[in-house]
Amino acid sequence: MENKTIITISRQFGSGGREIGKKIADQLGIPFYDKELIEIAAKESGMDKELFEEDDARTSKGFRLLGALGYSLGGPLSTITELSLNDRLYLVQEEVIKGVACEGSCVIVGRCADYVLRDRSDVLNVYIHADMEDRKERAVHSYEVDERDIEGSIKKIDKRRANYYEYYTDRKWGRAENYDISINSSTFGIDGTVEIIKMLAQKKAL
Amino acid sequence: MENKTIITISRQFGSGGREIGKKIADQLGIPFYDKELIEIAAKESGMDKELFEEDDARTSKGFRLLGALGYSLGGPLSTITELSLNDRLYLVQEEVIKGVACEGSCVIVGRCADYVLRDRSDVLNVYIHADMEDRKERAVHSYEVDERDIEGSIKKIDKRRANYYEYYTDRKWGRAENYDISINSSTFGIDGTVEIIKMLAQKKAL
Repeated sequence: MENKTIITISRQFGSGGREIGKKIADQLGIPFYDKELIEIAAKESGMDKELFEEDDARTSKGFRLLGALGYSLGGPLSTITELSLNDRLYLVQEEVIKGVACEGSCVIVGRCADYVLRDRSDVLNVYIHADMEDRKERAVHSYEVDERDIEGSIKKIDKRRANYYEYYTDRKWGRAENYDISINSSTFGIDGTVEIIKMLAQKKAL
Repeated sequence: MENKTIITISRQFGSGGREIGKKIADQLGIPFYDKELIEIAAKESGMDKELFEEDDARTSKGFRLLGALGYSLGGPLSTITELSLNDRLYLVQEEVIKGVACEGSCVIVGRCADYVLRDRSDVLNVYIHADMEDRKERAVHSYEVDERDIEGSIKKIDKRRANYYEYYTDRKWGRAENYDISINSSTFGIDGTVEIIKMLAQKKAL
C-alpha cells in the first residue's frame, strides 16, 4: 500500500481481535505490536531505566520524568501523587506507541493505543467484539481458560481491560464512539473481518 | 438484490444516521421506516384501538393484550403493574417492526429495532455515531437546534434515546456489542458510510 496505514485494535477477550490484527499486519506486510511486544520494547528502550529505578525520591523523580516526557500534568495522571510501577510502565509504553506510529504503517493491539494516538488523523481505530458462544470456544481452545467457569473468567478479563482503559483515559471501554469502526467478528468470521478492516483502512487513507 | 436485506440503524443525534438509512433504502429500492412512519403504522394498525382505548380496567386489559401479543410477561415489562400510554405504544410498534421485517427487505431506523429483531439471524444491526463538531453542524442546519447551547441539546436528545432504549431492553445504548457494526460517519462521510453498510449487508447475507 502506498499510503500509511496505522490500525489500532481494541478487543473483547476471546473475540479473535489479536488474531485478526496479526493477519492484517501479515497480509499488508507491516509490523505488528501487541501487549507483550510493547512491554518488551518499553523495557529495552533505555527510557525505562530511569523510570523504573528504585529511588527514595520516587515521586519527585517521577514528576520530573513526566515533565521530560512532555506531560502537562493536566491529564488523567495529574491527581496521582506517587507514580506506581504500572503508571511508569504506561508512560513508557505510550512513548513506544507514539514512536512506532511515527515510523510508519503498523497494527497495534491493546494498550489504549487508540487513546494514545487520538491526535493523529491517519489512524483507524477498531474495536472487535463477538458473541459469547464464540468467545467461550476461543477461550477454551486458544487460551486454555478453565472450563468450569469460562463465562466468569471471560468477564473478569474484560473487566480488567475496561479498568485499565478507564484508568488511563477519560473514556468508557467498549463504547462505539471511541472507535472509527466496531465489528462483531461472529457476524463476519475472522477472515471476513480481516477483509473489512483492510478495506476500511484503505478507504480512510484515501 | 436477491437475498433479503433487513438493516436496523441506531444513531447518535446529528450523526446522519437517518439520512444514511434513507439513502441505503433508496439505493437498494427497499422500504424505509423511521420513528414517525412506525408510529403512523402502529396507529393505523387497528391493534391500537383496543390498546389505546380509555378504560377504567386499563391494567387488566393491558395485561390481557400483552398475553394476546404473545408476551410471557417475563421481559422488562413484567414489573409494570399499569401500562402507560408509552408502554402500550411500544408494544404495538414492536409488532409493526416484526411485521415489516417478516414482509421482506427494509431499513428500520430507531425504535429499538435491533432489540426487537434480536432472534432473527438475517438482520444487520448498525450503530452510527459521529464527531461532535459534525453533529453540531448537522443539528443547526438540518434540525434547527437552538445555537445557544447546541452541545447541551445534542446530549439531552442522546440521553432521551439512551433512556428509551435502556427502559425497553436489557442493554446499554451505544455499546458496540449490541450491534454487528458501529461506524463513525465523520471518518467515512455520509456516502462512504452508505457504501460500507450496503457492502456489509451483502457480506452478511452470503
